Formats: sequence, structure tokens, C-alpha cells
Amino acid sequence: MVIEPPYLIFLGDVPDALAAKTGLGIVDWRPEWCIGQLRLEGCKADAGIPDLSIAEAKEKGVQTMVVGAVNAGGVLPDHWVASIVEALEAGLNVATGLHTRLASIPEIAEAAARGGAGLHDVRFSDVRFATGKGTKRPGKRVLTVGTDCSVGKKYTALALEKEMRNRGWNADFRATGQTGVFISGRGAAIDAVAADFISGAVEWIAPAADSDHWDLVEGQGSLFHPSFAGVSLGLLHGAQPDLFIVCHEPTRKTMRGVSHPLPSIQDVIDLTVTCGRLTNPDIACAGIAVNTQKLAEDDARKLLDELSATYGVPATDPIRFGVASLVDRIAELG
Amino acid sequence: MVIEPPYLIFLGDVPDALAAKTGLGIVDWRPEWCIGQLRLEGCKADAGIPDLSIAEAKEKGVQTMVVGAVNAGGVLPDHWVASIVEALEAGLNVATGLHTRLASIPEIAEAAARGGAGLHDVRFSDVRFATGKGTKRPGKRVLTVGTDCSVGKKYTALALEKEMRNRGWNADFRATGQTGVFISGRGAAIDAVAADFISGAVEWIAPAADSDHWDLVEGQGSLFHPSFAGVSLGLLHGAQPDLFIVCHEPTRKTMRGVSHPLPSIQDVIDLTVTCGRLTNPDIACAGIAVNTQKLAEDDARKLLDELSATYGVPATDPIRFGVASLVDRIAELG
Repeated sequence: MVIEPPYLIFLGDVPDALAAKTGLGIVDWRPEWCIGQLRLEGCKADAGIPDLSIAEAKEKGVQTMVVGAVNAGGVLPDHWVASIVEALEAGLNVATGLHTRLASIPEIAEAAARGGAGLHDVRFSDVRFATGKGTKRPGKRVLTVGTDCSVGKKYTALALEKEMRNRGWNADFRATGQTGVFISGRGAAIDAVAADFISGAVEWIAPAADSDHWDLVEGQGSLFHPSFAGVSLGLLHGAQPDLFIVCHEPTRKTMRGVSHPLPSIQDVIDLTVTCGRLTNPDIACAGIAVNTQKLAEDDARKLLDELSATYGVPATDPIRFGVASLVDRIAELG
Repeated sequence: MVIEPPYLIFLGDVPDALAAKTGLGIVDWRPEWCIGQLRLEGCKADAGIPDLSIAEAKEKGVQTMVVGAVNAGGVLPDHWVASIVEALEAGLNVATGLHTRLASIPEIAEAAARGGAGLHDVRFSDVRFATGKGTKRPGKRVLTVGTDCSVGKKYTALALEKEMRNRGWNADFRATGQTGVFISGRGAAIDAVAADFISGAVEWIAPAADSDHWDLVEGQGSLFHPSFAGVSLGLLHGAQPDLFIVCHEPTRKTMRGVSHPLPSIQDVIDLTVTCGRLTNPDIACAGIAVNTQKLAEDDARKLLDELSATYGVPATDPIRFGVASLVDRIAELG
């Protein structure tokens, strides 16, 4: 799935910034791709970029309108359909991560046919991937893994990309979830791929590259999450990472959506190495990324120091303290 | 996915028994459900059950015509469509494991609408499963796992069901692949489920049961197969087996479809226990099932004795020597 930038970010008339999380995330990480935003009357979210009409966006070279907001229930409200139709008739592609396929709405399907533009339903995977081959391919790869879902795997991978690029490295974030696909303009929502093709899809997402190129592969779930571990294992095998970063949220008591306790960081390191060796015998842990948002700064620093001493790798909070220490270690190991 | 027996097995005009493998497998394991076969002129396969017309099948109470044969390329030949339309018009359901959706063929979709019968595309999963919860549910479960794909996991699970039922146990084979779904009349082709729902689908396939009930869950792939390990792990977590049987083919040098060597049986036992504990802390290995087809009988017996001594569990070839020793051990452990 390739989504062509630059983008017009459609925010609809959502009642708050949370409902526009996807759009705001794209603007955060890819400001250079986001020419403007389209907001309907009453919209309470603001990405802080120019408000543009569809005609203005077209004139400024926008290729794709990304629906970066979600209505209650994940459905597409009727009054958003008109904006999508207008964009398609202007020849823009339209991309969404909604549960409804765009083409299932007749006005949208007809407008796409008239405008000749593409419809991208990031939540559905229509690509027929090959099954994974597991053979080592050139290029270096870092995978973010987790003690749970929603512990900062995407953020950490993006922060690593940014830090590496700032240092002049050849580095690309590789998306495996829908927001990530919008941010990178490429990738697949791996959780929607048919089970047989998980590792094969990741081999496509993070393909062979130059020997000094770094892929920062967005992890999903956890090998210890009883709902999603299959996704995490296929992703690990497909990514064949040289290095991985363990992402963790220290105040969480049970894994997201289930009643299981979180595994220890050591458990995650051990099982990731055991399983990861199948497609990369040299896999190693390069650091720990902790979401310390719920801790006072002193407590956060103390925890990170303890974790670093215990595991012998840098530990940081990417949001609070950056990822320079992780990239330093990657440089040493890589 | 529930497929209503009894069945009429459609064998088309395939050139040999191999192309009718699915149909012959259903007749082998569920003779009581297979009222008859429908063969077109020139068919070289024979399931050894009565040849019936669709009208005769209907009269004898058949509920579903199962397409138990596959044409070169897995497509549905035009001259098979007529038989499917006739079955649908007679009010029979039709089930296939082909790559083409039945409803994508207009004559078939229209005939289904006219006859009021169901179309089952086993290779496609339209069921929206819940994500796995991983909470322990009542009932006992055995999962067949493997050192590779295609090493007898389905056969072993079916043989265990048969032996247990012969002993008067309350036991059900639980299908996770397309042929298995036809044989059990229920289940899902787990490799076609969206990745996020692997373990959830298995929780549906092998649901809560009486405390003395045994599920024999058909395994898929291998935790060590770089293409399919994600499927195997989600299946393990969803099945939450009390006991597992390791299936193995001793002459194979590399894993199916890839260049990786096979893992050892010990590797498979260790990783299955490590990962399986997440949803069943008491998981244990109950035996080894070996496909010794390529060995002379003496060599086969010698190998099985060695494996049994090494691993401290019964080792057998289910086809050659039956599974009584495995069920004896399950009785001791269960």
C-alpha cells in the first residue's frame, strides 16, 4: 500500500483533538508532507497548518486527502461523504483507516471512477503478499517490541528515524499499523493481513536495502499478549531485526484488554532472542524505551538508571529524554 | 463456519485420486456423513460410495454438496459450475475450498438466491471473530504441533479422536484447516483469518466444554517455520492445550518451502511449553507422532523406541502403529 504525498489532512467536525489523533500524528512526524487541513464547521481539532479548500489544496499540489479523524463508532458520517466526493472529483486520492471500505459507499465509488483517483482503505489489506521466506536480506533493521500493546513502539521507531536522519544516517521508519502507514506513505496494517502472510508482508514492508541503511520497524502487540502474540511473532520473523528495543509502560498492571499480568523486560528480551534467531542469528537487544508519563521526573530518571544497570543497555523515555542514547548504542553495535 | 451434513461429495472429472484428496479424506474420516459422490464423465477418482444424481442426493436427505476435488490451478472450471447451480437450485448448500469465491460467479450467486441455500467458501473467512481473551476455559484440550508443515498434524488429531471415541470418551476433532473443516462440519481455515484474530478464532473453534470433554485441536505450521510461525503461536495461545503431541517427519532436511533446517523435537517441546504457559500454565508434552512412511518397518520401530527413550513419552506412527500408546499416556496425564 503506497499513499502518495503531499497530503490534505481532513479533520471533519470532530469534537476534540483526541478524535483527530491520526491527523495530528501525521502532521507531527511529516510536517513537510502536510500542505493543509480541511475542517468542517464546528471542528474542535486544529493541526496548526493552513486551512485549505479542496480546490486550493489541488492547486498547491496535494495528491491525497487523508481522513485523519474518526467519528464515534468509526463510521463515515454522511456529511463527510460530500467532502470525500469533492476531493475525488478534483482528482485527489483519498485514504482512510475507517472500518468501512470507501468503495462500499456508491457515491464515493462513482466519484473515484469519474476522477480517476485512488481509494486507500488502510484497515483492509487487498495486497496479496507472498509467504515469508525467512532468508537474510541486506540492510540493517531495528524492531521495537513491547511488554504490551500501546507502550510506545510506533513513537520510539519514529523518534529513532528522526535522530538517525539528524545524524545523517540513511534511515526509514517502516509502518505496520494504520497511522504509521499514513506517516510513512507506505506499509500495511499488519493486523489486517491474512494470518499466513504476516511475515511475508513484513518482508515486503522492510525490503532488502543498502548495507548501511537502517529500517526502523514499527512493532505490534507483544509476544506475551494472548490476543496478538501471533502478529508479534510473524512480525519478528519477517523483520529479522539485527537489534531490538523493548518498549514498556511501568505503571500498567495487566495487559491491555485482558487480565494477564505484564511480562518482565527480561522475559521479553529472552523470548525475542530465542524466536528472532530463526531469521537473524545475531539478534540482540539495544535498549529500553519507557513511557514514564505517569512518573515524576526524578522517579523517571531513577527508574531508567535502574533498568539500564539491570539490563546493561541504555534506557530512556523517548518523549521526555530523547533517543540519543539508543542511537549511540545502535552505532556501537551496528 | 458451520457446514451442515450429510454431504454429497462432488469429484468433478479430475484425472486422478490426488486431485480428489479432500473428498477422499472426508469419506475416510466421516463415512457416516457421506451419502454419495457425484462424478462427471471421465472422472478418474472414486471414493467408493454410491454415485448419486443431485435429485437422488436431495431425496436421501443430503444437506450440502462439498466440492471435494480441485482442478489444476485451483480455479472452478466452467463445466463444474453447472453442477453447482443444479445443486443450489435443488436447495442444497455448496461448500468449497477453492481460491475463487462462489458468489463471485454470477450464475452461482443467482442460483443460491433462488434456492435459498448457503455458499461456504472455506478458504475465506467472513466471520468477524473476537480477539482472543486467553482466559482458561473448561474442558481438556490436546494440540498437535510440528517440527514443520505437513507432518501429520491433522491426521494425528483425527486418529486421536477416533481412538478416544472407540474408548467411549467424549472427544471432538477441532478443525483449523480447510479439509478439517469439511471433516468436522465446523471450524475455520485459520491461515485465512485476519492476523489480529488468530487466537480469538481458535477460542471459538475449541470453545468451553464439559470438564471430561477432550478437544483434539488440529495444529498448523510450526513455531520454527519462518513463514507461518505467527499462525502456530496464535493457535497455541487460543487452544490453550493441556497436552500436546509433537508431529515429525524424520527424513526431511529443510522446512517446507524455505531453506531453513528442521528444529529438533526438543526445541519444539521447549518453545511450545515456554509460549503455551501464557494461556495454560500446566501445558505438557504427551507424545511424539512420526510419519515413518519412508522407513522400513524395523527402522521405524527402532527410531520410535529411541525417541520414546530420549523424550520420556510414547512415540508412534499413527498410520502404521496407531495412537493407542498416545491415548494411554493422555489418560494417565489428563
